Amino acid sequence: MLLKQIGEFGFIQRIRNGCLIRPQGVVRAIGDDAAAIAPEPGRLTLVTTDLLVERIHFLTDAVTGEELGHKALAVNLSDIAAMGGTAREAFVSLAIPERYPVEFLDGIYRGMKTLAALYGVNILGGDTTGAKEDLVICITVVGSVAPERILTRAGAQVGDAVCVTGALGDSRAGLHLILNNIPVESEMAALRRAHVRPEPQLREGRLLADSSAVTAAIDISDGLSSDVGHIAEESKVGVRLFADKLPLSEELGLFCRRYGFDPVSWALAGGEDYCLLCTVAPSLLESLAGAFRESFGRPLIVIGEIAEAGVAEVVFPDGRRVFLEAGGWDHFSSDGGPHL
Amino acid sequence: MLLKQIGEFGFIQRIRNGCLIRPQGVVRAIGDDAAAIAPEPGRLTLVTTDLLVERIHFLTDAVTGEELGHKALAVNLSDIAAMGGTAREAFVSLAIPERYPVEFLDGIYRGMKTLAALYGVNILGGDTTGAKEDLVICITVVGSVAPERILTRAGAQVGDAVCVTGALGDSRAGLHLILNNIPVESEMAALRRAHVRPEPQLREGRLLADSSAVTAAIDISDGLSSDVGHIAEESKVGVRLFADKLPLSEELGLFCRRYGFDPVSWALAGGEDYCLLCTVAPSLLESLAGAFRESFGRPLIVIGEIAEAGVAEVVFPDGRRVFLEAGGWDHFSSDGGPHL
Repeated sequence: MLLKQIGEFGFIQRIRNGCLIRPQGVVRAIGDDAAAIAPEPGRLTLVTTDLLVERIHFLTDAVTGEELGHKALAVNLSDIAAMGGTAREAFVSLAIPERYPVEFLDGIYRGMKTLAALYGVNILGGDTTGAKEDLVICITVVGSVAPERILTRAGAQVGDAVCVTGALGDSRAGLHLILNNIPVESEMAALRRAHVRPEPQLREGRLLADSSAVTAAIDISDGLSSDVGHIAEESKVGVRLFADKLPLSEELGLFCRRYGFDPVSWALAGGEDYCLLCTVAPSLLESLAGAFRESFGRPLIVIGEIAEAGVAEVVFPDGRRVFLEAGGWDHFSSDGGPHL
Repeated sequence: MLLKQIGEFGFIQRIRNGCLIRPQGVVRAIGDDAAAIAPEPGRLTLVTTDLLVERIHFLTDAVTGEELGHKALAVNLSDIAAMGGTAREAFVSLAIPERYPVEFLDGIYRGMKTLAALYGVNILGGDTTGAKEDLVICITVVGSVAPERILTRAGAQVGDAVCVTGALGDSRAGLHLILNNIPVESEMAALRRAHVRPEPQLREGRLLADSSAVTAAIDISDGLSSDVGHIAEESKVGVRLFADKLPLSEELGLFCRRYGFDPVSWALAGGEDYCLLCTVAPSLLESLAGAFRESFGRPLIVIGEIAEAGVAEVVFPDGRRVFLEAGGWDHFSSDGGPHL
């Protein structure tokens, strides 16, 4: 079925169900000029937005509608996680070319709603329109955080430990499999999954925020080398990473051996990992790491340290030091893209 | 100059200036994973979002960057106006094809920033990415309103007056001039201007909200016939409009005489007028109309009345009654588009 058979308002009626899962505090939802919500007293409002464009961020043939919907929302929730916040409301805008079947669009909403429900997020509005060529998804998520708990990119101190909450490079390897049409065997399925179904680490972000041990945080979207650079820049410090501390999954190791890539490069510059990167006051690291393991059954991984401003390096076990490019992933630069 | 010469981060640095014009209450602006703002105590948060896609909503050759930036923000501010609110923060996402010169993008931001400054709106973030074919602009605006003042689409009562705050059909006539490459002489310049530089009626919206006389409101984006239908639907009432009461500009009259169109049809179904449509309790109409004229030097125009549910008609001076199509503008429907 094509969208023109049911029209814009027919489509809105079709997707409206299951959007409002937490009605408390919602004064107006879908169906008015703007959504109206009662802010939670004493908390800051967080707002983040991400734009996903066909042929830039995804290939429609390579993913299901559910996967696309999941990811489009997940990348926004990940930004709220990086601020230590709770996600509350999502606003979903779609620009849809005529050729898209309604069933694929239903899948997008199914993927979004399933993820939204998992984290108690309402879908409160958006905009739906046509497009000539490429599908576009723009999602804005509104969340909240206690002012004294907020995690920002500024605040890292010289001597802080640099930590991550999950494996690095898997998503980029998954993208490689997709772009090169490599069939995903079960032993590498986790790589594709890391790319198309990233899990937003909202609970992890809140634990980091509640600990008072974390001095700065970011989610890894552009890639470790670039994102740690954002923290260094906003905090006006430098950074030293240890190549042998980077968490590499078994699947990434298998992938790199098979196709001849260097896993450390992929971990540093891959991007779209959507785990959290944070800096931790050294005196509080042990108790935070203990609490993290207790809550999530996996370690908070120390991968480096905050150094004096101007330092930006990766230290290898043999003593070699490589300059850590802060540029990283860039959507426009002609020499951009992930590189060490 | 092309974007790839300065890169995504270079572009963000370039546009960052002048985005934060009202720092009070802003805890984190551009440069973190999410913006963080302190909500105003006792007020509701309003959120609206609009997606503009090249070749669907605009033709790049037909407008300047400033006009495009102005309009992209104006349509969002208009939604806040329709809720009776104050606009506070804007989040601007752009998907930019490689061929766009940076100077055109600078123009977009100039247009947005000029309008934002006029209404005290910060630009606090967004997302900037590439696109293969069409420029996409997605803006989310966050505003606020006192809970007891909020204007919604629900609340219209049988017997209420239906009013508009400005002329109808001009924008659609301006679009016709643009689409047909008709050179705009000075006597019709106002029509093109109505289409490319709509003024968001935030002050008008707040006056309506403060009056306690207004029972429902909406901004006219889809077109009068469609938008009055949204109020009827959400308020569970009917509507009767009077054809001879519709405010038609001299320029629209000139345009319609010259090109052989019916101005009433254009006023009813044109769309993108971005003035406000509201319903007013009859006992309070006179004092509201007086206050409106005093504040803005122009009338609040009564164009019809709220009727029993099921009624949807336009009454002509000769007694003819025409069914008022509630469908109106629809971005997908194959038989959609403005029609009486």
